[in-house]
Amino acid sequence: MSRLWIVGLGPGDRRLRTAEAEAVLAQATDLVGYGPYVARVEAPAHVVRHISDNREELARAAHALTLAAAGRRVAVVSSGDAGVFAMASAVFEAMEAGDPAWRALDVQVVPGVSAVLAAAARVGAPLGGDFCVISLSDNLKPWPVILRRLRAAAEAGFVLALYNPVSAARPWQLGEALALLRDLLPGSVPVLFATAVSRPEERIRLATLAEADPADADMRTILLVGSALTRTIERPDGAPWLYTRRSVPPG
Amino acid sequence: MSRLWIVGLGPGDRRLRTAEAEAVLAQATDLVGYGPYVARVEAPAHVVRHISDNREELARAAHALTLAAAGRRVAVVSSGDAGVFAMASAVFEAMEAGDPAWRALDVQVVPGVSAVLAAAARVGAPLGGDFCVISLSDNLKPWPVILRRLRAAAEAGFVLALYNPVSAARPWQLGEALALLRDLLPGSVPVLFATAVSRPEERIRLATLAEADPADADMRTILLVGSALTRTIERPDGAPWLYTRRSVPPG
Repeated sequence: MSRLWIVGLGPGDRRLRTAEAEAVLAQATDLVGYGPYVARVEAPAHVVRHISDNREELARAAHALTLAAAGRRVAVVSSGDAGVFAMASAVFEAMEAGDPAWRALDVQVVPGVSAVLAAAARVGAPLGGDFCVISLSDNLKPWPVILRRLRAAAEAGFVLALYNPVSAARPWQLGEALALLRDLLPGSVPVLFATAVSRPEERIRLATLAEADPADADMRTILLVGSALTRTIERPDGAPWLYTRRSVPPG
Repeated sequence: MSRLWIVGLGPGDRRLRTAEAEAVLAQATDLVGYGPYVARVEAPAHVVRHISDNREELARAAHALTLAAAGRRVAVVSSGDAGVFAMASAVFEAMEAGDPAWRALDVQVVPGVSAVLAAAARVGAPLGGDFCVISLSDNLKPWPVILRRLRAAAEAGFVLALYNPVSAARPWQLGEALALLRDLLPGSVPVLFATAVSRPEERIRLATLAEADPADADMRTILLVGSALTRTIERPDGAPWLYTRRSVPPG
């Protein structure tokens, strides 16, 4: 029986994958996704790997739906959670625009530990209050919309989690975003650069908003920008803990 | 050697727990948490279960730190992800205020699949764009702050995920929040009520913002309020899919 699973693999380390993700991956005849993510999945040699480039989400989604409609058992894989700046939305967009028969397919989204949650866990509890998750990529979203959202979220006291802070084609956005945030928040607000969390090349940098350097980010980095209620706790050994207080004062 | 793990158990179904969470739970001598969450963990009879009521996070956190400082291997357990309206922030708050020796403890936060990610996965990809996660509880946060955050997020086009929409002591907040949102967003915006996701008593209700009924929520419910870019896809069998378009038009 044909199936289409849209699977979040977690941030990298296989120990952060769920049992359900492992179970559906073990049933797949076809793996579909961005090359480095497909490469994370161990599978027997008969499983077909369909790899594509980072920018081709909609074509990849349509390909996966076509395979499932032809009777294959297809797992579309994303890093982190499939629903957070990953493949789930592209699959449903392709479904809506495509062959009406695709709507009858047996589709299941399998959630995963998103990169933002893994990054936060590494340093404590910086998401301890209300928070917003924003992609800085303007591939699909006008830059003024992104700036407006950053401003609204920072002014309202949300902690900010920033995905896709930079890429080779977009080197300048993060600097402009940080400049905006410096106008709105105290310079002492903690900023976390969490790159490739739980993977061998993991890199964690903690800065203040005043001193945060865009050069500490690459396309694998999640930034967490604290609020006025985000605090650091010095430790005798190791980097400080970071957490956001649960109690919000009036005003 | 003493340890303190702060563990996200995932939303309920054990298949949505990570391998790392299973591994640390298997090493714990003590389980600390809200009764229903501690009860989810299978453990040998010699493991001590320290259960406490829902409102006592800070006292519970200090108790866990005390146990770890005394040489126990302690797992503080939360539903979903420990960093999202759960125990991680309380533990660090207790650490900062408490015995300075607690800062030298070997503490690790183990992330989990949060309820918001599991709820979204059940219905498609409603978090397909930027989103905010907000608790409606005013136990620790003034209600005017919550209203201001809802307004800022809705006006800026975020999808909203609402935790703690109601409790026995707070029956009225959700109605007031929905009334505010109806002033800001089209009445056709989809609203998801996802209750006890992945547990036997799971209940999923889809409504429009115009027709959303606070009576469909209880303290286990996550609400997802779409944006103007959130769409439904009708299916021949089953409830519609819900997803938020990745592309944001100018303006």
